[in-house]
Amino acid sequence: MTTLNKQWLLDSRPTGEAGVDNFRLVETPLPALQDGQVLVRHRFLSLDPYMRGRMNASKSYAAPQPLDAVMIGGTVGEVVESRHPKFAAGDAVVGMGGWQKYAVVDGNVPGSLRKVDTTHIPLSAYLGAVGMPGVTAWYGLTRICAPKAGETVVVSAASGAVGGAVGQLAKVRGCRAVGIAGGPDKCRYVVEELGFDACVDYKAHRDPKALHEALKAVTPDGVDGCFENVGGAVLDAVMLRMNAFGRIALCGMISGYDGTPIPMTYPALLLQSRLKLEGFIVSEHMDVWPEALKELGTLVATGRLKYRESIAEGIESAPEAFIGLLKGRNFGKQLVRT
Amino acid sequence: MTTLNKQWLLDSRPTGEAGVDNFRLVETPLPALQDGQVLVRHRFLSLDPYMRGRMNASKSYAAPQPLDAVMIGGTVGEVVESRHPKFAAGDAVVGMGGWQKYAVVDGNVPGSLRKVDTTHIPLSAYLGAVGMPGVTAWYGLTRICAPKAGETVVVSAASGAVGGAVGQLAKVRGCRAVGIAGGPDKCRYVVEELGFDACVDYKAHRDPKALHEALKAVTPDGVDGCFENVGGAVLDAVMLRMNAFGRIALCGMISGYDGTPIPMTYPALLLQSRLKLEGFIVSEHMDVWPEALKELGTLVATGRLKYRESIAEGIESAPEAFIGLLKGRNFGKQLVRT
Repeated sequence: MTTLNKQWLLDSRPTGEAGVDNFRLVETPLPALQDGQVLVRHRFLSLDPYMRGRMNASKSYAAPQPLDAVMIGGTVGEVVESRHPKFAAGDAVVGMGGWQKYAVVDGNVPGSLRKVDTTHIPLSAYLGAVGMPGVTAWYGLTRICAPKAGETVVVSAASGAVGGAVGQLAKVRGCRAVGIAGGPDKCRYVVEELGFDACVDYKAHRDPKALHEALKAVTPDGVDGCFENVGGAVLDAVMLRMNAFGRIALCGMISGYDGTPIPMTYPALLLQSRLKLEGFIVSEHMDVWPEALKELGTLVATGRLKYRESIAEGIESAPEAFIGLLKGRNFGKQLVRT
Repeated sequence: MTTLNKQWLLDSRPTGEAGVDNFRLVETPLPALQDGQVLVRHRFLSLDPYMRGRMNASKSYAAPQPLDAVMIGGTVGEVVESRHPKFAAGDAVVGMGGWQKYAVVDGNVPGSLRKVDTTHIPLSAYLGAVGMPGVTAWYGLTRICAPKAGETVVVSAASGAVGGAVGQLAKVRGCRAVGIAGGPDKCRYVVEELGFDACVDYKAHRDPKALHEALKAVTPDGVDGCFENVGGAVLDAVMLRMNAFGRIALCGMISGYDGTPIPMTYPALLLQSRLKLEGFIVSEHMDVWPEALKELGTLVATGRLKYRESIAEGIESAPEAFIGLLKGRNFGKQLVRT
């Protein structure tokens, strides 16, 4: 009996907002394995904001996602069958298998598949706190914000996979950690469960001045490091609070993904406060991954780095969960149980 | 007979555009020198865009210029009388004497007065290419843009004291130097006299898209380093041309000094192109001055660093010359012969 794979292809590119109808579900038989190939049964698919950028045809930092091909995405799962000496059936693995139940992976491509230990760290964490989002937080915080103990770090999208790790890593370093998140539930979680010092609800402060005032109340000594996941009015508000020689790690501009460029309102502050701002993509800094994963893995295994997951059930639910992520409906790391 | 000093005081703070009526000219008798003091007869006063920022009451990177006090400003001149052992009548000196014909300087304050050699370098150059503007160019180019040979550097306000030095220092380092300046005369000067590879006339391309196209035509390999003196539409156009991992030294936002904040139109490019942007003020990097002045002085003395001066005659002309500078009417370093 032939096993059928379920795959989500990019069917069309969005003209404005992305929608579920930009994707197409297909069922395809799994091919027989060639030498060097590994068949992986995915357990979780990671949904991440960067995927929205890949849906556009225009040049971004990465090649666009091709039409009619399986959507790109990080995955964890287990090896079902292997024709590669380094992998065996039952191995827990992390890879970039995409939006599908199974993946056939060439085990010889460096970095295509990595065996992971699930004794102390849950499998799904390799897509979050001990994976790309965790390393993203680690890189931006330690290499760009580079805060000293006693300094104040602000992070937007603070209840998300990246933001949550940023604040907790900042606390480990003796900093004051302030989050920005949407809604009282997320803010309570950021403070009470993740241990941030404060969290500002941007949905309760739609007016830029009000947001700035709310941020001012919880950053009495100003802001030294900003880890920016959102951009737009949120970044504007943080910039108004930044101290001289502050550092801004620019990781995401989620509010601008849907076509309309969102301006930065006060760029003169970059000069007046002598700020340093740097955009980065974690996949271009592979050299830091071992050091970052070591700290992140230790913190997760010892319960000092907490995270939350939003799990959508079934590969069929991927597009809807993804659109929800873009609209901020997820709470913590968005996964699909495949 | 008592010698009278002529001094320009800040009379009022501008509400919108600065005007000549914000300043007040007074005549005051020179006081008798105290021990440790030096009387300097100014020969040239430097006018610089930063002065506009100091006219505001609001917090900037420096304390505001006090009302009813002599306007701040760099000066060169000669010692008339000295009651300090390190200075003697006839010494050529550079200092921060302000908008006045004479200054009484406390020779014991470190950095208040510096003797300079006028054998190989003209006195006025210590306010330009071998002074604060030159070091500003040197710092932003070498420490922030940090271009490698073969890379492309773009500088706005390219015919000015800072911009002209940026491009010539970039050429010395084997880079392609592209200027942006206002009007065909300035552009011709930047290319033909200063030796830039190209210069774009922003006044001939008022539409942002046209400016971007004009810049594209002269930066076929994109832009690796941007030295920004202007901000606004000019910075927007350069950002659209920047290569991955480009560096932006933010030195001035002259178009925004008159009150209205000018937004940055495409901040998402900072992320998409993984740009590094840093605002700086040269007076906070005194450690580089000796190294910078050594290179700048050698280049000027050997005729390899060229510059132009706009000289307004008489201390009485300072306010009008300053307003002209803010409107881009100067051509090269703006000085007042006092």
